[in-house]
Amino acid sequence: MKAVLIESGEESKAVTGHGVNRGFSVFDLVLRIVAIVGTLAGAVAMGTAEQTLPFVTQLVQFSAQYGDFDSFKYLFVIVNAIVCAYLALSLPFSIFHIMRSRAGKSRILLTFLDAIMLVLLTSGASAAAAIVYLAHNGNSSANWFSICQQYTDFCQRSAGSLIGSFGAMFCLVLLIIFLAVAKSRR
Amino acid sequence: MKAVLIESGEESKAVTGHGVNRGFSVFDLVLRIVAIVGTLAGAVAMGTAEQTLPFVTQLVQFSAQYGDFDSFKYLFVIVNAIVCAYLALSLPFSIFHIMRSRAGKSRILLTFLDAIMLVLLTSGASAAAAIVYLAHNGNSSANWFSICQQYTDFCQRSAGSLIGSFGAMFCLVLLIIFLAVAKSRR
Repeated sequence: MKAVLIESGEESKAVTGHGVNRGFSVFDLVLRIVAIVGTLAGAVAMGTAEQTLPFVTQLVQFSAQYGDFDSFKYLFVIVNAIVCAYLALSLPFSIFHIMRSRAGKSRILLTFLDAIMLVLLTSGASAAAAIVYLAHNGNSSANWFSICQQYTDFCQRSAGSLIGSFGAMFCLVLLIIFLAVAKSRR
Repeated sequence: MKAVLIESGEESKAVTGHGVNRGFSVFDLVLRIVAIVGTLAGAVAMGTAEQTLPFVTQLVQFSAQYGDFDSFKYLFVIVNAIVCAYLALSLPFSIFHIMRSRAGKSRILLTFLDAIMLVLLTSGASAAAAIVYLAHNGNSSANWFSICQQYTDFCQRSAGSLIGSFGAMFCLVLLIIFLAVAKSRR
């Protein structure tokens, strides 16, 4: 009788532990989907940002071919696309973790890859943020004028795409913190 | 007799495991010291980069006060200083790990903080890299001229400080990978 009681007590404890893990796993899946939407929106918004030729370039007749905004744009789009593709590929593993809560090693591997993607996304988004800041405010030391009066569409879309990218970064940070919390609870 | 043999076998195994851990711990300490030198050099080089007034600003009479290079410079210096201070504070823990190889939890906590610092340093260094790239190459779409003919000292020092900062980033990535390898070996 006593043994049965102890057994049932252990079982309920195991179920609780299982429940916490499943809750984390579902949250993991939701965060991944939100991050996919963020990076996809960021990539599409930046990729489709048009640069209509302003009258200033025709006036000044500046014909340098190097150092266009396109290189930054494509860098940002490629980084977002890589992270988005990784997150889409990680979805089956995240679903697998919901079903099998004891998959400790694959969970740590996934978080390790998440951290690498976070660094990649941070570098792309920070570089883009610096460019967008310059486009909005210009720079007095270098005589770089603010270009957002001319390139309104480019400025709006690039600022919008930064929001998507930084949102995805926030999701990845949460994913890593949640794993650390879940591991320390055991 | 048999029991003694088994015991000595276990002991030698424990010593081997201990040796691997100690090797990792010493490498951890060395990487941290290299990263401290990198971030410190980056912060000092960027912080002391002088911007001598070029003749162009006097010619064009452009008097915008917002959006100076100083904000980027200070952001980069502050980020490097924070990471450098964190790494200096983490040195005693790293030395503690050399002496006590079984300190698993504090090692994971330290790696978690390393990852946060890596993201911080990546964001600062990437934004600075984008600005340095623009300073070197200019931008034809925005009519932003390359300023490295005028600001030679600023361009050289800022590019040099990026090397220190990216070197420290590389050390932090190695630190995190080594912990993952050490953990998966057990």
